[in-house]
Amino acid sequence: MIKQSSKANFYPVILAGGRGTRFWPLSRKRMAKQLLPLNSEKTMIQETVERLAPIADKKNFWVITNGDLVQPIAKQLRSVPANQIVPEPVGRNTAPAIGLAAFILERLDPNAVLGLFPSDHVTANEAQFRKDIAKAVTLAAAGENIVVLGIKPTRPETGYGYIEVGEQFERGVMRVRRFTEKPNAEKAAEFLESESYFWNSGVFVWGARTLANALREHLRETAPFLEKIAASYGTKDFTRTFARLYPKCENISVDYAILEPRSAKGIHSSNIFCIPANWGWNDLGSWAALFEHRAAEQQLADDGNVVSSKGSFTHHAGGNFVYSPKKFVAVVGVEDLVVVETEDALLITTRKNSQDVGKVVKFLDEKKLHRLV
Amino acid sequence: MIKQSSKANFYPVILAGGRGTRFWPLSRKRMAKQLLPLNSEKTMIQETVERLAPIADKKNFWVITNGDLVQPIAKQLRSVPANQIVPEPVGRNTAPAIGLAAFILERLDPNAVLGLFPSDHVTANEAQFRKDIAKAVTLAAAGENIVVLGIKPTRPETGYGYIEVGEQFERGVMRVRRFTEKPNAEKAAEFLESESYFWNSGVFVWGARTLANALREHLRETAPFLEKIAASYGTKDFTRTFARLYPKCENISVDYAILEPRSAKGIHSSNIFCIPANWGWNDLGSWAALFEHRAAEQQLADDGNVVSSKGSFTHHAGGNFVYSPKKFVAVVGVEDLVVVETEDALLITTRKNSQDVGKVVKFLDEKKLHRLV
Repeated sequence: MIKQSSKANFYPVILAGGRGTRFWPLSRKRMAKQLLPLNSEKTMIQETVERLAPIADKKNFWVITNGDLVQPIAKQLRSVPANQIVPEPVGRNTAPAIGLAAFILERLDPNAVLGLFPSDHVTANEAQFRKDIAKAVTLAAAGENIVVLGIKPTRPETGYGYIEVGEQFERGVMRVRRFTEKPNAEKAAEFLESESYFWNSGVFVWGARTLANALREHLRETAPFLEKIAASYGTKDFTRTFARLYPKCENISVDYAILEPRSAKGIHSSNIFCIPANWGWNDLGSWAALFEHRAAEQQLADDGNVVSSKGSFTHHAGGNFVYSPKKFVAVVGVEDLVVVETEDALLITTRKNSQDVGKVVKFLDEKKLHRLV
Repeated sequence: MIKQSSKANFYPVILAGGRGTRFWPLSRKRMAKQLLPLNSEKTMIQETVERLAPIADKKNFWVITNGDLVQPIAKQLRSVPANQIVPEPVGRNTAPAIGLAAFILERLDPNAVLGLFPSDHVTANEAQFRKDIAKAVTLAAAGENIVVLGIKPTRPETGYGYIEVGEQFERGVMRVRRFTEKPNAEKAAEFLESESYFWNSGVFVWGARTLANALREHLRETAPFLEKIAASYGTKDFTRTFARLYPKCENISVDYAILEPRSAKGIHSSNIFCIPANWGWNDLGSWAALFEHRAAEQQLADDGNVVSSKGSFTHHAGGNFVYSPKKFVAVVGVEDLVVVETEDALLITTRKNSQDVGKVVKFLDEKKLHRLV
């Protein structure tokens, strides 16, 4: 369904720098969320690559991550060229990361279309996902267009950014009016009622040149650093240049740096489009989100338990998430708990409190219990 | 404080046949509660023996248990003569067990005084315990007396048998009026108010001859079997005779078989006495009881947690019991849970539901998951 020419020019850029503290004790500094098999027997980043494989050449994949994760990612992604798994010398948020990819690809392939993908989200309907991405690639290749993939809200979520759309551009494609930061509960409820708001999935598609030009326009101080680093790519100076200049780049997200100022140009001038996506998407932001995703997949009743174990017994127990893959697990008389056991740690909390896992990691950092983080 | 002669004649008989399903997954068929270090670094049965060691000769200890536990008990109790760790061919409750000991000891030492001790209770004040037992031994040696140790109730417990006392016999010794089975909540509340009721601690002291005679009188069918088994003790026929006759014995407790009919003779004729005990006694009947005992020992605040682990972090968590000795444990936003982790199993329940652990063991038995029970 995607033309051979555009397949050859499509470059998935996978952002995999996150530490993933929210899945402690399973996630660790060197075993971030994207490296874990949270959704299937494959890891999140393996799923991300395989989901895209039918519409992108193997040699076109890029991964931007941090130094701690280069080795484990290379091990998990044998098909991705090793020199395209790029470790940032320091974390600088999404704008410099995707910007560097844009400047490198602009030099390698003037017709390159970049897709920016998180490495740790799930997508139940992969065929629909590929169809939408292919459409986005075609649209991005057709001009100075930016395409964002928007998820139809299913709850008044206050933890996500939203995309407000205006008129339809073509079937299945809306013009974007503006990007909205995480709303309060009242706003989120309004957004849920309205037909015009979508969750920002973090998936963007645009031409390398479009993005490079946008960076030159909107991130004037940072863009020259990125261009210099890109110019050294493939030479022996790359690592040194990267380490020297990247820290000087602004620590800013693509949304703030480019999408918001560009959308301010007006709905018809910005050329930002939203493809409403219906993939069974979930960003798995916490153990609670993983429970909900798994419960939906297993079509559990409301009082069901998601238990990963070697045998289990449940009695008067419902809504619990238990991960203890090597043990027999007995759950008696408890509700809505999250219990996760690894070789060296045991987490006991509730689904409601599972966002607080970061507090444990903070404690471990402070106590310098490095082996546990 | 105990006369040398009575020390030489005092024989602690420790009942250690229980399977201890209530401490699953820590307790197993071959690792019953009494073999576990629940209260200190020593196991419950080791504590039981060491508590008595200052007032009883090493060679006087007897242990009655089941075939599965003979080896591990022998390993834990190096000081107890191996041929005095006696495996019942089948379980027959306390009357035949202590009865057999009485008939054997009556033959070996006509002046023997037996003390019957559970192997899995805790006693915080061991000096007071020994003082009370020494007093009981003296009283039992003085005639056809039966001495029971009674615990002053501290709550309206419906799970224990009670002893009702009458007049004082001498300082610190009451005459027993009757034994009362587990009461309902209303009765238990009355008993708590009254000064006349004590919990039956399961500790009894009496002469071997007194007990043997009581068995001959009250368990007429069973007593001859026990006498024949006792007569074969020390001969090559013992194991065979034991295996053949013991199953014919009545499956009945000491309380039902002897104490209740004897107390029916009247408060002055029965010669049953109660020594009110104040030892910091706890029968550790469940994970919840263990939590309470440990919390009291650690003088925890109401919102304290009892956590056995290699490091821990608690946040908005109270009243939890967690046992995971080799792991770092994080407990966030939960209350009154019991979580116990072993090499092959993980139990997640509440203090209130911790009595239901037997249901897990039943399930495992039914599913023939023998490695887990």
